[in-house]
Amino acid sequence: MKPSIPKGTRDFNSEEIFKKRYIINILQSEYEKFGFYPIETPSLENLSTLINKYGEEGNYLIFKILNSGDFLKNINNNSNSTIWTSQNILNKISKKALRYDLTVPLTRYIAMNYSKIYFPFKRYQIQPVWRADRPQKGRFREFYQCDADIIGSNSIYTEIDLILLCDNIFSKLKLPVIIYLNHRQILSSISEILGINQQTKQFIINLDKIDKIGEEEVIKNIIKQGIKKESLSLLKLIFKLKNIKDNKTSLDELSKILKVSKKATKAIKEIILILNHIKEIKLNNSSIKLDYTLARGLNYYTGIIFEIKSKNKKINIGSIGGGGRYDNLIKLYNKKEISGIGMSLGLDRIYLNMEELKLFPMFVNHRNNNLFFINYGEYESLIALKIIQKLRKINKNCELYPQKDKLHKQLKYATKNNYNYIAFLGKNEIENQEIKIKNFFSKELKIYKWNNDFTILF
Amino acid sequence: MKPSIPKGTRDFNSEEIFKKRYIINILQSEYEKFGFYPIETPSLENLSTLINKYGEEGNYLIFKILNSGDFLKNINNNSNSTIWTSQNILNKISKKALRYDLTVPLTRYIAMNYSKIYFPFKRYQIQPVWRADRPQKGRFREFYQCDADIIGSNSIYTEIDLILLCDNIFSKLKLPVIIYLNHRQILSSISEILGINQQTKQFIINLDKIDKIGEEEVIKNIIKQGIKKESLSLLKLIFKLKNIKDNKTSLDELSKILKVSKKATKAIKEIILILNHIKEIKLNNSSIKLDYTLARGLNYYTGIIFEIKSKNKKINIGSIGGGGRYDNLIKLYNKKEISGIGMSLGLDRIYLNMEELKLFPMFVNHRNNNLFFINYGEYESLIALKIIQKLRKINKNCELYPQKDKLHKQLKYATKNNYNYIAFLGKNEIENQEIKIKNFFSKELKIYKWNNDFTILF
Repeated sequence: MKPSIPKGTRDFNSEEIFKKRYIINILQSEYEKFGFYPIETPSLENLSTLINKYGEEGNYLIFKILNSGDFLKNINNNSNSTIWTSQNILNKISKKALRYDLTVPLTRYIAMNYSKIYFPFKRYQIQPVWRADRPQKGRFREFYQCDADIIGSNSIYTEIDLILLCDNIFSKLKLPVIIYLNHRQILSSISEILGINQQTKQFIINLDKIDKIGEEEVIKNIIKQGIKKESLSLLKLIFKLKNIKDNKTSLDELSKILKVSKKATKAIKEIILILNHIKEIKLNNSSIKLDYTLARGLNYYTGIIFEIKSKNKKINIGSIGGGGRYDNLIKLYNKKEISGIGMSLGLDRIYLNMEELKLFPMFVNHRNNNLFFINYGEYESLIALKIIQKLRKINKNCELYPQKDKLHKQLKYATKNNYNYIAFLGKNEIENQEIKIKNFFSKELKIYKWNNDFTILF
Repeated sequence: MKPSIPKGTRDFNSEEIFKKRYIINILQSEYEKFGFYPIETPSLENLSTLINKYGEEGNYLIFKILNSGDFLKNINNNSNSTIWTSQNILNKISKKALRYDLTVPLTRYIAMNYSKIYFPFKRYQIQPVWRADRPQKGRFREFYQCDADIIGSNSIYTEIDLILLCDNIFSKLKLPVIIYLNHRQILSSISEILGINQQTKQFIINLDKIDKIGEEEVIKNIIKQGIKKESLSLLKLIFKLKNIKDNKTSLDELSKILKVSKKATKAIKEIILILNHIKEIKLNNSSIKLDYTLARGLNYYTGIIFEIKSKNKKINIGSIGGGGRYDNLIKLYNKKEISGIGMSLGLDRIYLNMEELKLFPMFVNHRNNNLFFINYGEYESLIALKIIQKLRKINKNCELYPQKDKLHKQLKYATKNNYNYIAFLGKNEIENQEIKIKNFFSKELKIYKWNNDFTILF
């Protein structure tokens, strides 16, 4: 029997966990610095809550839970009915599913707690999600999302808030990023000008594939949507704008192209307002870059959209986060339209970037100051444990080897577990109320006294 | 469409999360103080890894994941075969399942990483598990287990280690507990003396129900196992031993009853050794009590077993943790027998106990020192954001209200979100390079200067 784990899932050892914790601690503290507070939702949601929220692909990729017990019971009863297919049987044998993202659970949470929440509602959520996607580098079937959302305000300061938050986080992590910015209303007016405004959704789906299939293929697909011949040069012009380094110039050019569209004018104004603020406040180590081909797959966005990528291009694992404004998401449950804006960071991709760029501090060799006690047998161990318990009271990590193995075996354990300090407390030391502590690396040996209360006199 | 979440699952708000974190931080730091280091395993395990590891009830309670896509595809092909039942179809439509506990994944982890691990291996793991159990107070379908295990040593110091760890944890949490102690070899020799040594497993299953159905019913069930008449008084005598307050006296009495049994004598010796050590080292606020009716449901235990209960009897939600020695668990994958001992704490039950006893510190009102900035409009907001970004750099949590709402509305938001300090930065203040900060509770108002660098001169 050969042990294994499901495809796309991972075990984590201590070192990996300490690194993950390092990132999560920074995220939590930055989120809280900005007035976001945490919520958590169950790993299991009703299948009805999730189904049809992520498009057809999502329906396929959601992990469904089989009903408990005799799940065929209610079906077998009317056995003379139609032929079973995966499709017509699914709802009968599965009522629950694993969380697929953190946004749909958020809207469900808000709907269930509507009367208790005072808006604007700023929440963050750091939890795993599950997708039955094809695993590849940077894409797992169980991975952590780290979301921050502001619900109940359409003020431009919420956009600014998220950009500053993003910059603060990635400068704390020492990972320089580029925030690519676009606006759904710009995309919408481009599709109008191209004469395909009845197919804006498809236009966005086509655009969204740009990282996967490249610009040329995307343009081919958009042409297939049936744009007018004279629009082709316009489209190519817009695609070329991303080569303009200066955001101001790029916006001026875009304005010229889209000047007939009121919604484009409004969207461009919003972007200018954001950029002006950000310029004044100054970012730490992030840059903002406009990209009018940026689409974001999810179809609930209505305003600003953005995507975060590492400035280091070596690691080709796509964006490490993104987000945008959505105006109608909460409407699913409430009749009221409540505007929201959110950002989602991918913990695992941040991790891979930081690992590649060696950005984790050396703290991972975490037992540097911990004390390892050699086991000399029952009599000595009892004294050792008394001293150890005193040390733990002052927050020292220490450990007595569990049995009187040969010294070299005990020392090997200490080495394997990264101990730096070894405590020797044999019969002689006990007689003299002493303890010898050796620095494993410098080889320095120090002798300390301990008192009748078993406290070492450092 | 009325939103809901699956039975037995929960949403958590900020306050609840901060309380959970409070417990988890203490657990982590105490585990690490004892030389345990973390691992994490995937939420999804292969169904074959979990099935038949938790008895028949476990097989039923494991949450199974439906295969992705057309899960009936391979079954429909041979349609002229047998009638489908939940039983014969399960393995065909489900290959994965949700983690049911942390012990089986640990053994799977060790088997997969055997060559990399240097024994003894001390690991802790704090992760959720899922069980399709009937929900009730203190029992959820998604809940956190917090395990610490030592694999690869059968030294009595590992038992002592876990007891000290337990005591340190619960004194840090200020939650006094009783650790009930027993030994599987004592149970085994009792069943021998009762003449039912062929049915020791059933004897243990019967004993394990004592908290649910009471002593009398348990005795009835054991009688049904077919014990000799003369054994009945012996059984009742053993049951009565738990009324003896002094552990030493209780062990003396037990020794008399079980003196013919070599394995009992050995087990009692072990217990005496542990108790003597613990007595010398002294526990902080936990007590140890022997209970020869303690059984622990899982059938992999072979030595010491223990269960942890709150000293406060008001909250009737059963034990908050337990554990014991298991000698054969790793053998599932490896031919070698590796002795292990483990402890599992239930985060949710610790939480409920602490909530009931009001043991959470007041820190939960966590925005005490945070600063809330009134939004006076675009001009003032930009200055406010510059000052705020400086404050965040020195780790102050602060927030600018996103829009220029009426003052009372902004203040209500601040109140609802537990802000203690309100910053007023209007046109006048900006002209004087000042900022007014009001303590919401003491009503005290202080005026500070800020410099050209937008740093407040506190």
